[in-house]
Amino acid sequence: MSERQVTALDVARRAGVSRSAVSRTFTVGASVAPATRDKVLAAAESLGYRVNFLARSLILRRSELVALVVSDMDHSFRARTVDLLARGLVARGYRPVLLPWSEGDHPARLIDMMLQYSVAGAIVTSDTPPHQIAEQSARWGVPLVLVNKAPVADRSARVVQDTEAAGRLAAEVLCSAGCRRIAYIGQERPSYTIRDRREHFIAAARELGLVVAAEVAGAAQNHFGGMEAAERFLASGVAVDGVHCCNDFLAIGFIDGLRRAGLSTPADLAVVGCDDIAEAAWPAYELTTIRQDAGDVARATLDALMACIAEPNAPGRTTEVGVSLIERASTQRPT
Amino acid sequence: MSERQVTALDVARRAGVSRSAVSRTFTVGASVAPATRDKVLAAAESLGYRVNFLARSLILRRSELVALVVSDMDHSFRARTVDLLARGLVARGYRPVLLPWSEGDHPARLIDMMLQYSVAGAIVTSDTPPHQIAEQSARWGVPLVLVNKAPVADRSARVVQDTEAAGRLAAEVLCSAGCRRIAYIGQERPSYTIRDRREHFIAAARELGLVVAAEVAGAAQNHFGGMEAAERFLASGVAVDGVHCCNDFLAIGFIDGLRRAGLSTPADLAVVGCDDIAEAAWPAYELTTIRQDAGDVARATLDALMACIAEPNAPGRTTEVGVSLIERASTQRPT
Repeated sequence: MSERQVTALDVARRAGVSRSAVSRTFTVGASVAPATRDKVLAAAESLGYRVNFLARSLILRRSELVALVVSDMDHSFRARTVDLLARGLVARGYRPVLLPWSEGDHPARLIDMMLQYSVAGAIVTSDTPPHQIAEQSARWGVPLVLVNKAPVADRSARVVQDTEAAGRLAAEVLCSAGCRRIAYIGQERPSYTIRDRREHFIAAARELGLVVAAEVAGAAQNHFGGMEAAERFLASGVAVDGVHCCNDFLAIGFIDGLRRAGLSTPADLAVVGCDDIAEAAWPAYELTTIRQDAGDVARATLDALMACIAEPNAPGRTTEVGVSLIERASTQRPT
Repeated sequence: MSERQVTALDVARRAGVSRSAVSRTFTVGASVAPATRDKVLAAAESLGYRVNFLARSLILRRSELVALVVSDMDHSFRARTVDLLARGLVARGYRPVLLPWSEGDHPARLIDMMLQYSVAGAIVTSDTPPHQIAEQSARWGVPLVLVNKAPVADRSARVVQDTEAAGRLAAEVLCSAGCRRIAYIGQERPSYTIRDRREHFIAAARELGLVVAAEVAGAAQNHFGGMEAAERFLASGVAVDGVHCCNDFLAIGFIDGLRRAGLSTPADLAVVGCDDIAEAAWPAYELTTIRQDAGDVARATLDALMACIAEPNAPGRTTEVGVSLIERASTQRPT
């Protein structure tokens, strides 16, 4: 039922110009006389002509498609980053192909998808360090940017959090709140960023003279994991006056776990999270946290990808994205 | 720096078979002798051969790409649906192209993107009813599924919520909680689904003998909008004993707004939301809500798209997705 596809030749005939004039009109940077251009555009409009990007991609051996490998879109920070990356790619003339990735998926499938469509580049924001993806991207010359991951290959660019600043800010705010003995609530299988931030947090805390008296790994990295971690922590009987949770959902669950046991924040325990999700500002929590801006991450990632596409043989660079402290009631302890 | 693209002919030579045997090996449903097939796959593997999907798409005039038009990925239900749709498309051999859409964007740009890549179909989950997208899809024969939208063209299939059941369940649970005078908290620019559900809620409430004493439109459809609506509602001085908020974020904000004014849920006011976001189960809220399962929505959408692709000339059908009542403490009033 669809209409016959209009070709460049149809447009050339309608406009009374050569086939090559049509082609030049639709090629960025090609030279064409303004009058010719206007005739071509008018004819294209009236015929409903559209450049066939598939054909162009075949000739150029590179499409405008960019693979966006993501996992864990349930997490609002991740979903927001993916949304901003997709908008940024579209604004730059690229088309994001969304490739969800779960632990246990076979990376060969992802790599096949990337190569089958001659993608212009790939962005990986999924949790698992994709060694094979990075190796294959380098082998086939596909520009690759890894977001918040360990380095896996010389050629892949990376965008990472300034985990040193993030860990230090968390330790400092607990110290300023008058805490002396603190606990760290992590997760069973920490991501690269969380592992790195934990080390900087522990180092900064010790440097400030704080005693790191306990470490608990949340079974899940969500609200339920935080409540469950609070229960286990309280059962251990270790006394502390401050806690740093590795993400905000865990921190909020931890606060609810403390409440269930009759303890309150910040009077009994100061709590600092990380991410600055919308829920952190809710009056039931007023959680102090370390903010990483999704817009900053998306911008740095798109800049890195454009640089890789422009200079495919340059070694991959690492861009650090800054963080900031958002102070709320959960660390404002009575002195 | 990338290696020369390996062709089907290279594979045929290495395997010692014909070019056509290679082609048949990589075509779904084509017949090829098992021994030949094994030789071809071994040669393809050793040479790193991959089917060029761009070339195949050009020949078939249809790619395996499916446009996924989305807005508002910040909303966790939307992000989860997009994730499930993308996974489902990949599992069925399609590749989702993520096209973010904001109010005020020019639809022509989206339509161009869809046609330039000869997409096999399109799914629209964005808020604004995309009249032009539906018209152009029909004109160019692109199968289209609209998720939670008003009908816009004969040919587009739709997946919608059973808003009649959702509205009725919300009214019934307030009635069972002993409420007699209730309020409805909506939003300034309600989506199709919310508008439809509101009508069914009001009708069911009246049928049950409840007085709908007030209606307030939240300025934003998030937690802040809920708190602000509570403030405005309380300032109006209208007395009610139950409230239905059009989504869970608004409902949770409304509960926080009541708390700020010294009122509590459910003792002073029963509250019922809609969506069943993760936060609804948090102990600070224990919100009764109407659940729509993102998995059900994604499955129905993918089934509808596959049906449209298989039978492009059939009129678009509408599939209703069921809802269920999740009862928590926010409607368990002392009798």
